[in-house]
Amino acid sequence: MGHRIAVAGASGYAGGELLRLLAAHPDLDVVAVSAHANAGQRVGDVHPHLRSLADRVFVETTPEALADVDLLFLALPHGASAGLAAQLPPGVKVVDLGSDHRLTDPAAYARYYDGDFAPAWTYGLPELPGQRAAIAAAERVANTGCHAAASILAIAPLLAAGVASPDDVVVTSTSGTSGAGRSPAVRLLGSEVMGDLTAYKVGAHRHAPEIKQATGVRTLTFVPVLAPMPRGILATVALRPVSATGAADVRAVLADAYAGEPFVRVLPEGRQPRTSATTGSNSVQLQAAVDEDSGRILVTSALDNLGKGAAGQAVQLANLMLHLDETAGLPVDGIAP
Amino acid sequence: MGHRIAVAGASGYAGGELLRLLAAHPDLDVVAVSAHANAGQRVGDVHPHLRSLADRVFVETTPEALADVDLLFLALPHGASAGLAAQLPPGVKVVDLGSDHRLTDPAAYARYYDGDFAPAWTYGLPELPGQRAAIAAAERVANTGCHAAASILAIAPLLAAGVASPDDVVVTSTSGTSGAGRSPAVRLLGSEVMGDLTAYKVGAHRHAPEIKQATGVRTLTFVPVLAPMPRGILATVALRPVSATGAADVRAVLADAYAGEPFVRVLPEGRQPRTSATTGSNSVQLQAAVDEDSGRILVTSALDNLGKGAAGQAVQLANLMLHLDETAGLPVDGIAP
Amino acid sequence: MGHRIAVAGASGYAGGELLRLLAAHPDLDVVAVSAHANAGQRVGDVHPHLRSLADRVFVETTPEALADVDLLFLALPHGASAGLAAQLPPGVKVVDLGSDHRLTDPAAYARYYDGDFAPAWTYGLPELPGQRAAIAAAERVANTGCHAAASILAIAPLLAAGVASPDDVVVTSTSGTSGAGRSPAVRLLGSEVMGDLTAYKVGAHRHAPEIKQATGVRTLTFVPVLAPMPRGILATVALRPVSATGAADVRAVLADAYAGEPFVRVLPEGRQPRTSATTGSNSVQLQAAVDEDSGRILVTSALDNLGKGAAGQAVQLANLMLHLDETAGLPVDGIAP
Amino acid sequence: MGHRIAVAGASGYAGGELLRLLAAHPDLDVVAVSAHANAGQRVGDVHPHLRSLADRVFVETTPEALADVDLLFLALPHGASAGLAAQLPPGVKVVDLGSDHRLTDPAAYARYYDGDFAPAWTYGLPELPGQRAAIAAAERVANTGCHAAASILAIAPLLAAGVASPDDVVVTSTSGTSGAGRSPAVRLLGSEVMGDLTAYKVGAHRHAPEIKQATGVRTLTFVPVLAPMPRGILATVALRPVSATGAADVRAVLADAYAGEPFVRVLPEGRQPRTSATTGSNSVQLQAAVDEDSGRILVTSALDNLGKGAAGQAVQLANLMLHLDETAGLPVDGIAP
Repeated sequence: MGHRIAVAGASGYAGGELLRLLAAHPDLDVVAVSAHANAGQRVGDVHPHLRSLADRVFVETTPEALADVDLLFLALPHGASAGLAAQLPPGVKVVDLGSDHRLTDPAAYARYYDGDFAPAWTYGLPELPGQRAAIAAAERVANTGCHAAASILAIAPLLAAGVASPDDVVVTSTSGTSGAGRSPAVRLLGSEVMGDLTAYKVGAHRHAPEIKQATGVRTLTFVPVLAPMPRGILATVALRPVSATGAADVRAVLADAYAGEPFVRVLPEGRQPRTSATTGSNSVQLQAAVDEDSGRILVTSALDNLGKGAAGQAVQLANLMLHLDETAGLPVDGIAP
Repeated sequence: MGHRIAVAGASGYAGGELLRLLAAHPDLDVVAVSAHANAGQRVGDVHPHLRSLADRVFVETTPEALADVDLLFLALPHGASAGLAAQLPPGVKVVDLGSDHRLTDPAAYARYYDGDFAPAWTYGLPELPGQRAAIAAAERVANTGCHAAASILAIAPLLAAGVASPDDVVVTSTSGTSGAGRSPAVRLLGSEVMGDLTAYKVGAHRHAPEIKQATGVRTLTFVPVLAPMPRGILATVALRPVSATGAADVRAVLADAYAGEPFVRVLPEGRQPRTSATTGSNSVQLQAAVDEDSGRILVTSALDNLGKGAAGQAVQLANLMLHLDETAGLPVDGIAP
Repeated sequence: MGHRIAVAGASGYAGGELLRLLAAHPDLDVVAVSAHANAGQRVGDVHPHLRSLADRVFVETTPEALADVDLLFLALPHGASAGLAAQLPPGVKVVDLGSDHRLTDPAAYARYYDGDFAPAWTYGLPELPGQRAAIAAAERVANTGCHAAASILAIAPLLAAGVASPDDVVVTSTSGTSGAGRSPAVRLLGSEVMGDLTAYKVGAHRHAPEIKQATGVRTLTFVPVLAPMPRGILATVALRPVSATGAADVRAVLADAYAGEPFVRVLPEGRQPRTSATTGSNSVQLQAAVDEDSGRILVTSALDNLGKGAAGQAVQLANLMLHLDETAGLPVDGIAP
Repeated sequence: MGHRIAVAGASGYAGGELLRLLAAHPDLDVVAVSAHANAGQRVGDVHPHLRSLADRVFVETTPEALADVDLLFLALPHGASAGLAAQLPPGVKVVDLGSDHRLTDPAAYARYYDGDFAPAWTYGLPELPGQRAAIAAAERVANTGCHAAASILAIAPLLAAGVASPDDVVVTSTSGTSGAGRSPAVRLLGSEVMGDLTAYKVGAHRHAPEIKQATGVRTLTFVPVLAPMPRGILATVALRPVSATGAADVRAVLADAYAGEPFVRVLPEGRQPRTSATTGSNSVQLQAAVDEDSGRILVTSALDNLGKGAAGQAVQLANLMLHLDETAGLPVDGIAP
């Protein structure tokens, strides 16, 4: 008998990926799945790929339906997590895949989000120094954003090591379409996105304060781009070196920071991260270079926005919170081609 | 300690998928992987998604390098399997993902293939009546072709039940690009295939005799089409009913044939198979209809050409041949979106 | 000064392609464009690729706004054309890209469509025998459906020549996503369609009666499939030969039928139609084969569903109706890669 | 009778697009097309989309075969242009789509290219101040690189106006696969690129010196990324403002610089460039923003790498050099969806 698990908001893409991972998890049992518009439907009608859970039925997202569990995943729209979490009985651990509980600074929150500020929960990125233990001890953990995860993992060790400056970090982060969600919209139709690249929310993206908070970056330029593929994020991160440095030194700092990490890999020299190599997995690929012309440090970072960027990360957090093997149920090998 | 496994020809797409599945298999240990042009390289350089085997090194494809195993998978170019298999010591079980040992009729072989006819091995489709036991007892098993698997699973029960005629079966089978292999060719470049649909080998496709042999179809029209996606096959199969019939009756025949099968699912009424629902899994989705105008039975069949169409199937065969749980290490849930 | 042209329903994909072609047409001037939900918006906001018309404003779709023209294109949802057409003054020629006026048989109409039967207009496929003159003399012309155009051009000459039987024609017709329209729907999201092939409306597709009516096919099995690309249709058509025949003979019948046709090309032996070769053009590519096993004639047919399947066809019709050069403003070269 | 034109190296993607544009050009007649490996083949066999030139035959790339023209386009591999150009008789104008004659600085050339330095020709970007007249007067013009064109058009006016600093410009430029050419390579197979984003030549890209030379940028960080689509480039350019500035001011500088330009458009506020909007056209879309957090100026720039990034640009240059209407034969409307 595994731990009892529920997923609120399981009809979207992150929720679907979570169900896929949970169905294969050796120590977790899905006992309830909820949805809003899809309540009453079977999982197989909404997620035709989830054969092993096809006959489960989505219930309404209520505290009663979801509370009798050891751990609840929230994959709800922005603003919906705090209210639900407040109604849960003590002892129910919660991982929130949404953005309600990520930011510690009310001012930063007010700048990017509508609605009332909700206090931050433990930040759910185990690879940050000290964070693994904090997560293991927490009852409530806020999952990282997908763009944020790709950037933070690229940036944090370089600032911590004093190799790169916290000022003037410039990121272009290109994502597949599942990151934009499953709500129907003309701009997300297949006809619109295939063959298209376009930037969005240029100048003011919600992931910027999260990246700054988690890394200590002081000034950040962040441009998100939408690419014609279902999954994956590739972040290209340009940092200023504190002193003249070479690619090998930067790579060594990253390699050192992630030595022993099961999901983050600094690639051998000469190989660049590929999003396709991480599809369906909880893996992150990193590579470092130094621009010949500018001397800037360039880190490229690839992950699956639904894997380490959302549902994979969430399962990793749950494993820690439930004191299981941190890697249980989490593939490191991607699906390619 | 699991069974000792080797993979010959592991640098292609089917070989790579096999390695991915084997790496996660609870009872099988990969002890040797071979390649031809890539011999001496590390797995991670050739298959950047296979993190868990990244540091393994491809050896040359020789009997010596591959023989000290319980089971050897052959994922070699056409014509290369028979020679290698002949040099293996007794006791080494073999699953051949190639086409050398599928056909029982030398004349059919000569019509579609160059080179000498090699005797057929046990045909590796466990869902065919009687075949599961034959496979479990065999030392040498020939994996199905990917197009063939999609069609045979759609056709066989209807002919066996006397519902559809063996004459004049018409199939269009549309496949992703990985089915065309990993050898560089202009026609397979991303620039060429994205935005493109094209039929190939129209009038004379090698999978036709395999489908006929496995199902009893007497005359078959088979058109393969290449679609702009990496994986997946959708076969649309039009059969003549023996007598006037309805979709529900046809669906019942299929449902009955595959009741209890772990990997083949007849979808509920109103839902069509989607290749994306099978990506990365060993699952097959089937649906039946009857054309209002012609009365023809229409069966649609979706699978992952690298899953149930190649490597997933091969692992299922190995599980049977090694008397393991038939489903061990084989996902039924696809990766979507 | 060119002929005065209006487009009703210009905010969808067919309407947008029509505007693109009209903007480059030497003899036609767009004087009004209408839309429903997008009325009041600028063309550039709805069709960001149409720079040359970017500042035009969509008006409401009313007879008053659209009547002061020589020719009106209707690109409206099903059922909306008849009412608008009835309110137009005499002398306004009309090409209807919708399906309201294609079918001559009220019973066939009632089987596939809701709403009242509207009498058929002249059928807008100039390559059918006698149809070019009929179109040139008509005031009202019904554009072909996109799937129908691909199939009819493949089938009609073979039946007319007595080479193929009108009984038991089997078609799989695979289309890009723009054929499914621009209304937001989950199943058409980029995340859903990329990597996916799925059949739809299996057993009862609206294009079947149109194909039968235009070709004389008596029994037709027609399966439409949705492919992960924005544009293009590839039809694979299997016909029964009247007597044993070879590919060269079939090709000769097609080549003879389309000799001198500017937009339909029978490819040289050894080359298969590719949808990518027709993108953005009014071209159709055809090839013929005979299946070795079954003896069935196989015709493959590729076109751009928004080109010869919709807007290109419509401009060709308008050219005829306005007694212009039939090829004016219509590219024969596709955009590739 | 139009001007006599030849294209050397017409079997690649840039060459094919050039042929497509030339075939529709009102004032230019293609009299010779050459290729290397494809010499002796027909255009239709190599470029199945070019119906209007399908029966032309590729000749060998020799001065004799190409010299009897008014203007010769060179679309040859790196290093091949200089030798051929030297053997042409006086009076033959030349546009080189390759990189041999772009750089003025031998040291920059030596750093990024093998082989001997060849003197720079007139730089072929008409939208740069003074360059239109220089091109019109030149006999030899070097076409821009595709990544370079997207970046230069975004950067040049801001430096010229003193709004942005020439120091520390950071660019991520993401391109479709046709930019990587048509030579078969495993990494460019459809199976590899679909679903994948990856950066390449990180730290040292050949387009960097070209961008610096054309804009006056002093330090440039340039990261190219390959995206899963056949065509299109989206550059995200981050510049340091000289003093605090707003998006409207930056947009005004760009709008002013390109007022009257037929092919470069600064989008209205609220709309971002989309590569799909430029497909098949010679258009460029630009938008400006200022990052809330860093204050950096962000310019996004979209074009078709085969259009304004290669063949469209080349035709625009030829129009100027032959004193034709600069826009002749060049679409401004893209093909979408």
